[in-house]
Amino acid sequence: MKTDALKNDTFIRALLRQDTPHVPIWLMRQAGRYLPEYRATRARAGSFMALAKTPELACEVTLQPLARYDLDAAILFSDILTIPDAMGLGLEFHDGEGPRFARKIESAADVDALPDFHAIDQLGYVGDAVSLIQRELHRKVPLIGFSGAPWTLMCYMLEGGGSKDFARAKKFLFHESTASHVLLGKLARAVSSYLRMQAKAGADVLMLFDSWAGLLAPYEFDEYCLRYLRQIVSDLHADNATRNLPLIVFAKGANAHHHSIAKLGCTALGLDWTQKISDVRQQTRQMVALQGNLDPTVLYGSAAQIRFQTLMLLQDAGREPGHIFNLGHGMNPDMNPDSVKILVDAVHEFSIAMRAGEHLGPSIAYEPLA
Amino acid sequence: MKTDALKNDTFIRALLRQDTPHVPIWLMRQAGRYLPEYRATRARAGSFMALAKTPELACEVTLQPLARYDLDAAILFSDILTIPDAMGLGLEFHDGEGPRFARKIESAADVDALPDFHAIDQLGYVGDAVSLIQRELHRKVPLIGFSGAPWTLMCYMLEGGGSKDFARAKKFLFHESTASHVLLGKLARAVSSYLRMQAKAGADVLMLFDSWAGLLAPYEFDEYCLRYLRQIVSDLHADNATRNLPLIVFAKGANAHHHSIAKLGCTALGLDWTQKISDVRQQTRQMVALQGNLDPTVLYGSAAQIRFQTLMLLQDAGREPGHIFNLGHGMNPDMNPDSVKILVDAVHEFSIAMRAGEHLGPSIAYEPLA
Repeated sequence: MKTDALKNDTFIRALLRQDTPHVPIWLMRQAGRYLPEYRATRARAGSFMALAKTPELACEVTLQPLARYDLDAAILFSDILTIPDAMGLGLEFHDGEGPRFARKIESAADVDALPDFHAIDQLGYVGDAVSLIQRELHRKVPLIGFSGAPWTLMCYMLEGGGSKDFARAKKFLFHESTASHVLLGKLARAVSSYLRMQAKAGADVLMLFDSWAGLLAPYEFDEYCLRYLRQIVSDLHADNATRNLPLIVFAKGANAHHHSIAKLGCTALGLDWTQKISDVRQQTRQMVALQGNLDPTVLYGSAAQIRFQTLMLLQDAGREPGHIFNLGHGMNPDMNPDSVKILVDAVHEFSIAMRAGEHLGPSIAYEPLA
Repeated sequence: MKTDALKNDTFIRALLRQDTPHVPIWLMRQAGRYLPEYRATRARAGSFMALAKTPELACEVTLQPLARYDLDAAILFSDILTIPDAMGLGLEFHDGEGPRFARKIESAADVDALPDFHAIDQLGYVGDAVSLIQRELHRKVPLIGFSGAPWTLMCYMLEGGGSKDFARAKKFLFHESTASHVLLGKLARAVSSYLRMQAKAGADVLMLFDSWAGLLAPYEFDEYCLRYLRQIVSDLHADNATRNLPLIVFAKGANAHHHSIAKLGCTALGLDWTQKISDVRQQTRQMVALQGNLDPTVLYGSAAQIRFQTLMLLQDAGREPGHIFNLGHGMNPDMNPDSVKILVDAVHEFSIAMRAGEHLGPSIAYEPLA
């Protein structure tokens, strides 16, 4: 199926910084609890992990937002923490809470004891889900495969779940430097092999989530985060299955490091909502496409507020190719599905008009902020 | 007492970007739970708020770290949330948790119903503590007075306590724009009057903590955060009691906005640990002193690791005047008091040697990170 041409390739073209008829949009966590149809499937599955581990159900929820909205990409329904789960830590989600592991890493010995990772043996269900989704998508839009990045996986593996500051992981860097590097090296190899499996199963684009990159000081970022992202990019470039797939790196909070990450040779950077796209473009000019970065809270606003903020962001990003619209963080469960439609349609409508040379600014009605 | 000359004025001189014999250092939350003598006083007081509200006890714990370490500044023992408490929200601290309010702001009507704020009537205990500390300090080092900044106060007032993302406060900006500005305006006036009271009571330096500035998108930052910081700076510049006091603004996570904040006319910026001092100096050249920004986690490291990281930071900051050493965030309760001594002494020793033109780099023993 994947050999057929994509019906809508704007996302791929924007990643490659080619002209597109409109700015493509997809949303992090676009398949999720804010959708009633997702909640119904999840109830049938019994648990989040049962849902993620059943390819038919993962496929079903992956496609749900595409039935509702004119999105320009699909993203595999899964979690960033599947690799530690496959390594035996036992990932669980309880209602209203973040991820939690049954076991955590507490010592250098625990790092050494981690089993070898074989993506196809241990995460075959993800490959099956990717194949099935790709078949059901009928090349409507591209499919994104993804993984958590090594530093972020390490954070959760040491803490055993979410945390405000991941102090256990950060202490480990000082108390167990050598074991930290052993762990990050194992994770980098696992991530490369996991993404390769997803590529072979049919993913069109790959994405790395380094959600806790912003916890690190600059020299720590180079040492514990960037180094392993570099290893993964290099692994993917060396392999026929992944060499030609666009790769998006979303290192949340790593605002001081956009240039360093762009230099790794990835295709695009995911951006959180705390910087202007125009500023990041200055820092990374001609190196990468940029994906983002609407403050997700805007989706709690009125239709007029959503449209106004969307327009402001599009105007800031400008008409240069290489912008993919997204939120700066994932959708929240209490967001209104109708707001997503307003956003998706606004991105398309405004970006088409901007490409036609229309001067939009003063003609947009909005509720003044002050 | 305050008319006497300071015995150690390196902190003031560094704030004014004048030459100093060494780089001055103090630590956010230097008086706190990591010190056994603090825990003893706190136990006597019965609760955090009883401690903060009893000037003799607040004075006692303010001075505790100065008895142990060669710190270059004292900071009033208090909390950033005293103003909302004085406005009737009922601040409480429970063991092992962050701040919690008995009542929270839930509507525009709640904002309108907030009582007028009179610093001396409602926070007289803070003025009394400042006077007493200043008397007991005997001009050994300067005394810092402080407050939470309006946006951060609003975050806690809407949420009723700490939060991962302060979604309630952020939603309020969209659902109740007008009431948001009314609230922020009230808070800015309260902060100005509160800092004026602390200045009159004897504070030598003032500091604003905008701990959640990093939650805002760029245009939201200008609208809801920077605007009210500007109002406070302008109020302080207009008043004889505060006009000549150095003002430090610590807008945590606001990495994209250092230049905007420096332009307000404050004396120094507090920095979290996620950017290099040398980079921020480029962005704010000749406008402000910089305070920070060691990753607090370094204090969990060995003596050699603390010394090495300290040296790296001092070398990055360079020999240009206008650097005050600090952590990028407050001390944690589980930190070792001995590590603070190692840090304080290292900052002094290395910065004196650097000023003497010694080439330190290769001669420092350290545990390699990899």
